[in-house]
Amino acid sequence: MTPAPFREPREVPMHPISSPLATDLYQLTMMQGYFHSELRHHEALFDLFFRTPPFGGGYAVYAGLSHALSYLEQMRFSGEDLEYLRSLRLFQEDFLDYLAEFRFQGRIYSIPEGSLVFPHEPLLRVEGNILQCQLLETALLNLINFPTLIATKAARISREAGEDNVLEFGFRRAQGPDGGLTASWASYLGGCAGTSNVWAGEVYGIPVKGTHAHSWVMAFPDELTAFRRYGELYPRSTILLVDTYDTLRSGVPNAIRVGLEMKERGDSLYGIRLDSGDLAYLSMEARRMLDEAGLASVKIVASNELDEHVIDALNQEGHAIDLYGVGTKLVTAADDPSLSGVYKLAGIRPPGGEWVRTLKISEGRRKSTLPGRKQIYRLRNGEGEMIADLLELEESHPDFRAGVWGVHHELDHRRKHYTDIAEAEPLLRPVMKEGKVLAASPSLEELRKRVRESMSSLHHSHLRLLNPHIYKVSLGPALTHLTLRLREEYTRRWEMERETPQG
Amino acid sequence: MTPAPFREPREVPMHPISSPLATDLYQLTMMQGYFHSELRHHEALFDLFFRTPPFGGGYAVYAGLSHALSYLEQMRFSGEDLEYLRSLRLFQEDFLDYLAEFRFQGRIYSIPEGSLVFPHEPLLRVEGNILQCQLLETALLNLINFPTLIATKAARISREAGEDNVLEFGFRRAQGPDGGLTASWASYLGGCAGTSNVWAGEVYGIPVKGTHAHSWVMAFPDELTAFRRYGELYPRSTILLVDTYDTLRSGVPNAIRVGLEMKERGDSLYGIRLDSGDLAYLSMEARRMLDEAGLASVKIVASNELDEHVIDALNQEGHAIDLYGVGTKLVTAADDPSLSGVYKLAGIRPPGGEWVRTLKISEGRRKSTLPGRKQIYRLRNGEGEMIADLLELEESHPDFRAGVWGVHHELDHRRKHYTDIAEAEPLLRPVMKEGKVLAASPSLEELRKRVRESMSSLHHSHLRLLNPHIYKVSLGPALTHLTLRLREEYTRRWEMERETPQG
Repeated sequence: MTPAPFREPREVPMHPISSPLATDLYQLTMMQGYFHSELRHHEALFDLFFRTPPFGGGYAVYAGLSHALSYLEQMRFSGEDLEYLRSLRLFQEDFLDYLAEFRFQGRIYSIPEGSLVFPHEPLLRVEGNILQCQLLETALLNLINFPTLIATKAARISREAGEDNVLEFGFRRAQGPDGGLTASWASYLGGCAGTSNVWAGEVYGIPVKGTHAHSWVMAFPDELTAFRRYGELYPRSTILLVDTYDTLRSGVPNAIRVGLEMKERGDSLYGIRLDSGDLAYLSMEARRMLDEAGLASVKIVASNELDEHVIDALNQEGHAIDLYGVGTKLVTAADDPSLSGVYKLAGIRPPGGEWVRTLKISEGRRKSTLPGRKQIYRLRNGEGEMIADLLELEESHPDFRAGVWGVHHELDHRRKHYTDIAEAEPLLRPVMKEGKVLAASPSLEELRKRVRESMSSLHHSHLRLLNPHIYKVSLGPALTHLTLRLREEYTRRWEMERETPQG
Repeated sequence: MTPAPFREPREVPMHPISSPLATDLYQLTMMQGYFHSELRHHEALFDLFFRTPPFGGGYAVYAGLSHALSYLEQMRFSGEDLEYLRSLRLFQEDFLDYLAEFRFQGRIYSIPEGSLVFPHEPLLRVEGNILQCQLLETALLNLINFPTLIATKAARISREAGEDNVLEFGFRRAQGPDGGLTASWASYLGGCAGTSNVWAGEVYGIPVKGTHAHSWVMAFPDELTAFRRYGELYPRSTILLVDTYDTLRSGVPNAIRVGLEMKERGDSLYGIRLDSGDLAYLSMEARRMLDEAGLASVKIVASNELDEHVIDALNQEGHAIDLYGVGTKLVTAADDPSLSGVYKLAGIRPPGGEWVRTLKISEGRRKSTLPGRKQIYRLRNGEGEMIADLLELEESHPDFRAGVWGVHHELDHRRKHYTDIAEAEPLLRPVMKEGKVLAASPSLEELRKRVRESMSSLHHSHLRLLNPHIYKVSLGPALTHLTLRLREEYTRRWEMERETPQG
């Protein structure tokens, strides 16, 4: 182990990528369409949300907001970008002139980064000119879907492994360099204790850790010499990889010999690492051998295709593992490698007019969107435990003291009266106004702390790995009423359209 | 559809990320270890290979080499990097001075990028000073594993969908911005006809394509108006998304109306897009409706969680889809989101001495490595069809005219005599010498062409989606002999070590 002192991150932990062309072509063709249509000066209201928590679990850990905001603040079309767009022969000069002056000037409301979040609730809401808000869709989804996915995976794994027992080792199989960098960042936020990724250490101040590879052992004439050399060089942080030749017959005995030599000269072997075979059995055997040799303080690190399910199985069987090196399955979120976040229009407003609330209904209730400007209230009982989230139209200001009715998102007949609400915290807060970030982003350490606190205020039945108890996200009375009314209006309208062909 | 003219990529399609710290901490601690040990001036030989083709398939498409080489050529430790490393209190000043002067000066041999590649064969071999070669491991794996994975996925999908019928639409759910950028690049290389990702269009010259989103329809008072506006603006490239309200009762009839209006004024609706529901049924119904209206030239584009298996199922059932928009499942390689490439020591050489060949045996034959400097010969018959790949020690120069024996990688008793070999192409060729790239990388278009040609020279039984016929990668006689001999020596050695404790 190589315990690095915690280090403040570089002044601006900027995402290395900030091209405004990091978007789908259709955002630009739609923008040009709005530019030339009667909607040019309309305002739009978009919600970013997901419909299903990843990994078959019951929650997600919201991450990526601060990077997304800094991207938006700095988004500019360079001369080269415009030249490229011109070369596509799809865009007119007046629209390209508009892009040359483009600055995002809208408003963003968001749940605090690092919060636990649930299906159907807007993680963030974007308001502003429709051209501007449309453009953001792809980049915002990209910048939030992935970190949220990985932070969630890290939280799940860390919960099984125990606090501060997981090191992220995944860079080599991550989805590209920045897939690795962002994964290290989000893994730490979600609960990992450190990373092997030195670049993430430099950019984000995450503690970096490491052992050695098989090649170290293979490069020397024999395992014992290889172990000795490492121990000499790193007298307090050496972790010896013991499975190059034979874990119990060669690796552990050689590690013990080196550990005793180190002890004799006042140094201390930090640990050994198991990277293959039956980790439950090998860890217990290695523990016994180390203890018998008087090396009870030497830690046992395990790696090899670990995830929350493998660790859960190890826990059930019994083992002597102290630390887990988790790689591929964490940084690629291997069993569910994308979060299905979407960005949907919830309203449109002509200059000086009122919001016209919109919804999409074609794919049935499950994929229906929720219209209008909404607030999310996180309801807590007197012990601070989360009871449910209530989604309600912002203008309706519910009085929680009297209790409040919540309606199921898909099944209107399932209603619940929430009482004994000690706290109803509004989650959506302004984070950007006229395109400017309103407050400095919390540090990574603060976000990490927020995740831990949030996890501890959610009942453990919602945190279960599989088939968790569903945490309730209910619609308030006003939102329910509006949704039902609009759904009926829409249905009636296209039925009329079908009967009365339009000109 | 927005058909963009093909455009030459920017002069240097450089990977945006080039930090030498994009590595695991242990590479640096091992480097420092070698620096202070008797191995400081030794040369090492590393092979980069994978053991299992992704997606349960029979092959992979090799991609990422040119980006990896340009990364290596430019790898330098900045003052800030060194300052960060110093802050970890793990590195000594003499070693940091060494890093300050670091340039990769080794040799790299590689299979041509864009080739089909198979388990156990080195995609590339790195030779040079052991410190230098050790450092590369993590970055090389990261830069090759992911593009190879995605190019392979794209080849599989494109083969089911038909040449030039797949558009990559995945940016919003990719694993980070550069996960999306690299995925667009690798998808095009593997066979896609274009991408929605404008950034990839700008950086790599990939054709960009797009339709419009549901929000376009929802923003207007009605679907017909929304469709009309788009058709007016894009008279030849409009693809209308028809499932916002009801595909067959609203979307397709409105698209037909707009298509006819466009036709009347001499324009032409390019297509419609189906994004939900039963794509087989809806495409056939829509085709019938379009044809009956005299719009036989309007194409049908389908999207919604597609991959090679869904397209295969559609093909078996019958459909009227012309083009496929494939997103999440392609860019994240959803069913197998990492390629398990590894980087293993195959030899070590003291200054002025001979190569000592090394192998790792602890995890049984399946995970055993192959020792020494190897060449791969791709054997072809008189029709140019690939018969097998033969791995052999480079110095042995087999004579293929007489036929050649090949031995199974794991099962020594399975041997095969290859005869009627019309061509035995050596695949590993020098691509970098003294840290300098030897030849300009092929263009993306050339790589893409190479993939198509390679696919056509492999028998279709190896290209099957699931349970393909295994393409043979055999070991030649000299390599077999060396591997067996070393394995025996190693086993005997640690047995002796066990009996005769060392000092």
